[in-house]
Amino acid sequence: MIPVKAYATQSPRSDLAPFNFERRDLRPHDVLVDILFSGVCHSDLHQARDEWGDSIYPMVPGHEIVGKVAKAGSDVKKFKEGDTAGVGVMIDSCRVCKPCIEYMEQYCAEGMTGTYNGYERDKVTVAQGGYSNRIVCDERWVYSVSDKLDPAGVAPLLCAGITTYSPLKYANIKPGTKVAVAGLGGLGHMGVKFAVAMGAEVTLLSTSPSKKNDAKQLGAHHFILSTDEESMKKHESHFDVVLDAVSGNHNYEIYLKLLGIQGKLLVVGLPAEQPALNPFELIKNRRCIIGSMIGGTRETQEMLDFCAEKNIISQVEVIPMNYINEAYGRMLKNDVKYRFVIDIASLK
Amino acid sequence: MIPVKAYATQSPRSDLAPFNFERRDLRPHDVLVDILFSGVCHSDLHQARDEWGDSIYPMVPGHEIVGKVAKAGSDVKKFKEGDTAGVGVMIDSCRVCKPCIEYMEQYCAEGMTGTYNGYERDKVTVAQGGYSNRIVCDERWVYSVSDKLDPAGVAPLLCAGITTYSPLKYANIKPGTKVAVAGLGGLGHMGVKFAVAMGAEVTLLSTSPSKKNDAKQLGAHHFILSTDEESMKKHESHFDVVLDAVSGNHNYEIYLKLLGIQGKLLVVGLPAEQPALNPFELIKNRRCIIGSMIGGTRETQEMLDFCAEKNIISQVEVIPMNYINEAYGRMLKNDVKYRFVIDIASLK
Repeated sequence: MIPVKAYATQSPRSDLAPFNFERRDLRPHDVLVDILFSGVCHSDLHQARDEWGDSIYPMVPGHEIVGKVAKAGSDVKKFKEGDTAGVGVMIDSCRVCKPCIEYMEQYCAEGMTGTYNGYERDKVTVAQGGYSNRIVCDERWVYSVSDKLDPAGVAPLLCAGITTYSPLKYANIKPGTKVAVAGLGGLGHMGVKFAVAMGAEVTLLSTSPSKKNDAKQLGAHHFILSTDEESMKKHESHFDVVLDAVSGNHNYEIYLKLLGIQGKLLVVGLPAEQPALNPFELIKNRRCIIGSMIGGTRETQEMLDFCAEKNIISQVEVIPMNYINEAYGRMLKNDVKYRFVIDIASLK
Repeated sequence: MIPVKAYATQSPRSDLAPFNFERRDLRPHDVLVDILFSGVCHSDLHQARDEWGDSIYPMVPGHEIVGKVAKAGSDVKKFKEGDTAGVGVMIDSCRVCKPCIEYMEQYCAEGMTGTYNGYERDKVTVAQGGYSNRIVCDERWVYSVSDKLDPAGVAPLLCAGITTYSPLKYANIKPGTKVAVAGLGGLGHMGVKFAVAMGAEVTLLSTSPSKKNDAKQLGAHHFILSTDEESMKKHESHFDVVLDAVSGNHNYEIYLKLLGIQGKLLVVGLPAEQPALNPFELIKNRRCIIGSMIGGTRETQEMLDFCAEKNIISQVEVIPMNYINEAYGRMLKNDVKYRFVIDIASLK
């Protein structure tokens, strides 16, 4: 077994604290990654605090992982020692259902194996995440990361990045497509960067006037204050796509109204209360609402390659491991531009 | 001007009663249709009783119209005297916006002109519907109807028919597609017939066990009692498409759960209360919800031609005009299989 240093939480109300455990010895297709950086996703906090139910403790959160390959199993083809590699939100799946065969493992018929807060396929071993100095993972769920990119900024691509890239690709964003991004946080800022890189005409929608400048810096072409009723009214039926990256409670109606003929509302934010849906606004313009959850292994690699080509990384604030509890507090106040990333060297 | 006999309502609480008015003389592109049958749509009742607001009185409802061409304007190309013809939910639109140019006039940027309870493009003349013995309409919004089909059964195709045909085509239903239809009323029974004719494997979902036999008679291959939790659970992630033709209040979640990878929930029912939407069920399987409103002029003609080819008509109960108030009462109790159609000869 391989000894691992980590931070874990022991209960819904505990702070995260140092924790040691072991990972399995390498199987033929496994890769051992020495973790350099681990992003802090809002879902880490939801699960650490058991806000979605069924949390397993002790829990080592973290599913935005970048590091260096320390060792590759005997049958590994994709990696060799020293390669930069990433691990994201899942580490396994049934591998034989239709979605798995089509590399949409996130929709595995049996359910994907999450990187933490779940059981591995043996139904016994608890998976532990990236707030740790090492991870062992089957190579299918390990991605090649270009050394051209700053690894701290790459970490959030493994969740926030693919979560926004995948629906934008599915919605067939092309040069000239009119895309609005609602909400400028970890997801939203990646949505803006990707939509811009895909050639879209991008508008940021935000309830906060202070985001106007940030939007511009991220490459957005326009800004709409979503509390300004006149401006929202003026843009009714204007957009081809709205990417809804708002995690606070909200109604879908205000975004639906903005969509023109066959316009698509892409839902990636997960508010706690179920939003109401006005069917009259849905049938108008033959609008649709599409949900999307991260992306499959093939698409995740495609996204990372796209980022290398277009020089895209997440905008991050790097923190030491022992700052994590404070970081959670600030995350709850949206006080981060736009993602905390843990420098795992600080674990030593 | 052309004298017309009709039934109208004078206020939200009045019964419908005999009413005489005049229609315009024919313009070069107009067609005069002597109405044979007029279907009774649930939206007639909603609007007669001002349940959607802004109703205009006196109101002659009716937008499922079949008749014989009595006269064609000097520039009319599509019709000659004696042709069987239909008029549906709209009678005009701006004609110059992008949706109009693409024959999706129902999504006209300025708003389509409804067949009744609205103003014509002159913004002065109140449009009056099919509970009348004659209608004058620009040929673009008049459809050719095959004489092979029983005209009484054709009338509901002009609304209930196109409302279900259009989203099923948009969802790309093909032989083998697994389609569930929720709700067996005016819309649902047409949804079953169309999906079967398109080659789909069709399941009816209903809260009423008595609908099982009806479903079979309409050609459905399977039946699921939607109150049977075990059966619903067994069919989770099973369908490619669910056509939601339920007009009563309901939650979208029970239908979303039934959808497999990239499954589509087609919404054509318009419940009074806004359904709640569970975003977790939406992101699972990359599901989507698509709204759809009737269909454009080109697609409506395509639908009628498809019906002639496949010998599809609506299952109707023909009533005399003076039975309309009783029919409304029975419609509220879902006591009709599946559409009332007024025999306009009874108006004389």
